[in-house]
Amino acid sequence: MGGDHGPDVVIPGAALSVQRHPELRFLLVGDRGRIAPLLERHTKLKDRSEIVHTDVFVTMDAKPSQALRQGRGKSSMWMAIDAVRTGRADAAVSAGNTGALMAMARFILKTLPGISRPAIAALWPTLRSESVVLDVGATIGADAAQLVEFAVMGEAMARCLLGLEKPTVGLLNVGVEEIKGAEQVKEAGRILRGSKLPMEYAGFVEGDDIGKGTVDVVVTEGFTGNIALKTAEGTAKQLSSYLRLCLSRTLMSKLGAVFAAGAFEALRDRMDPRKHNGGVFLGLNGVVVKSHGGTDALGYATAIDITLEILRNDLVSKIKADVEIMTGLLKQPDIMQDKQSEPSL
Amino acid sequence: MGGDHGPDVVIPGAALSVQRHPELRFLLVGDRGRIAPLLERHTKLKDRSEIVHTDVFVTMDAKPSQALRQGRGKSSMWMAIDAVRTGRADAAVSAGNTGALMAMARFILKTLPGISRPAIAALWPTLRSESVVLDVGATIGADAAQLVEFAVMGEAMARCLLGLEKPTVGLLNVGVEEIKGAEQVKEAGRILRGSKLPMEYAGFVEGDDIGKGTVDVVVTEGFTGNIALKTAEGTAKQLSSYLRLCLSRTLMSKLGAVFAAGAFEALRDRMDPRKHNGGVFLGLNGVVVKSHGGTDALGYATAIDITLEILRNDLVSKIKADVEIMTGLLKQPDIMQDKQSEPSL
Repeated sequence: MGGDHGPDVVIPGAALSVQRHPELRFLLVGDRGRIAPLLERHTKLKDRSEIVHTDVFVTMDAKPSQALRQGRGKSSMWMAIDAVRTGRADAAVSAGNTGALMAMARFILKTLPGISRPAIAALWPTLRSESVVLDVGATIGADAAQLVEFAVMGEAMARCLLGLEKPTVGLLNVGVEEIKGAEQVKEAGRILRGSKLPMEYAGFVEGDDIGKGTVDVVVTEGFTGNIALKTAEGTAKQLSSYLRLCLSRTLMSKLGAVFAAGAFEALRDRMDPRKHNGGVFLGLNGVVVKSHGGTDALGYATAIDITLEILRNDLVSKIKADVEIMTGLLKQPDIMQDKQSEPSL
Repeated sequence: MGGDHGPDVVIPGAALSVQRHPELRFLLVGDRGRIAPLLERHTKLKDRSEIVHTDVFVTMDAKPSQALRQGRGKSSMWMAIDAVRTGRADAAVSAGNTGALMAMARFILKTLPGISRPAIAALWPTLRSESVVLDVGATIGADAAQLVEFAVMGEAMARCLLGLEKPTVGLLNVGVEEIKGAEQVKEAGRILRGSKLPMEYAGFVEGDDIGKGTVDVVVTEGFTGNIALKTAEGTAKQLSSYLRLCLSRTLMSKLGAVFAAGAFEALRDRMDPRKHNGGVFLGLNGVVVKSHGGTDALGYATAIDITLEILRNDLVSKIKADVEIMTGLLKQPDIMQDKQSEPSL
């Protein structure tokens, strides 16, 4: 059990989830000496869970390669993911080291046929509702074919988690015109436009389109996606600080803040990162969801909620089926023709 | 005279600048038929400016290559930049097509010796004050040596525009640990750490560090920088919309909004993108500043203010001198040794 707070957050988080979804059952992988006393305070969860003891942990600062070597077989992270492989668990949720979790998940569960690299997808609150944004940091760089894979996986996730029949998909770029942007992004655009995939491809979108909710699925590679996500988080914190500062300056504004307390509460609620917590690992033979390392019980429960939705909608099978369609379509020669008839700038 | 509104914004913007800085003189390059009537309303500006007539314009959607071909010699954009080359003007300010402006500026003014590619730098409001962020969209991709050039140029800009003696410099990455991130970013980090450049290199920063103001200069390549900038703009707009929505929900919150009107005014002022408007082209033999295409007179005047500060502090000479030092230092063999002694992951 990882993250910044270990069982102190995970156990109350799981307890919250059991209240919401009494049908849930948990394997709690970690130090029995720390977990068991916490379970005494949450009897509902205790009745629905089993402790799998280990005292080997992957630290938050371990390199992925180091974690794979040292945590193999016996670490809590390994054992949780391996339970998904053997079918003992339906999904793994972890607040631990992201790089290590991805490396282990990939090693143990393997990628789906037709998927060259997994991605981490985030649910991003927008002015319209929520969008799926991927990859937010699984790997750095992606070629056109990998971006197309991300598009297919992200679209399936939007259908499952946002309840949309035909989610729209956009490629993140530095301009919306066809001629602009990174070569691999333009190439991915040509493939998606010409592919006859059963997907609403909406073209390029820019950074400010994410928050607007211009499309339901925003596709980019992991470096840019991670920086966009963290920049948005930083900007949100920055504006909250400004707001607090401005409201505390005069007696009048303090009075205003008291009257508008309900509004600020609603604003805080909308912006609450705990309500969108959960990075979904896509492209693997199994479900792994990453909770933010610094979240609290409420945030952890959100990650479990997301995991449950993924299982209920059988996201992995949907992705498998979609990737098969994609692989078949992209083999057809007319797609290559479409590509070559485009201007090359 | 470009941008979304042409002279209707540029002329009132320049008029505002003349009020602030009566020593300014303007060459107004564009359609005399549109400019002259507007000048009648701004006599102070009229006395301090000269119209350079042309009715050829680079459109906002022209490709850079097309603009270079069709706008050569006779377009307002070309003539404004060429006035910088000949010394008739000290700097060019434009709200026109960014890609075309950069292509022309590079073609006419050439890059400084030792600089392989120019960058566009933005002033980014932070919780501490302001930071310089570059490249926000001049070109896509940058290798380690180019990132080091951006660091040197950005540092010089922070000294000139933020009045700092020893600005701190960070490389934008997906993690702060030495072992994480894109290869070219790690390599740039090794060079900056080992280079003995007279610069406060602070290591890697992440997306949320930009708004915090963790460092004074944030260095990244143009694709990521552009997406970070626009994502932050989008998030700021999103939160303003939420705030308005929340404040208008109940009578109490509306009342609160009235009392706190001064605070919201202060918040609006802090977040006002017009107060940070101006993308500075760095690495050229001359000063070119890009105003946001959709800004108003106040925003345009900010771009002129920034331009004036650049000229007063002779940023181009400072960059020239710093690049010379950098080029000299990076030729020393010990830097290559430093680089090779680092772990390669």
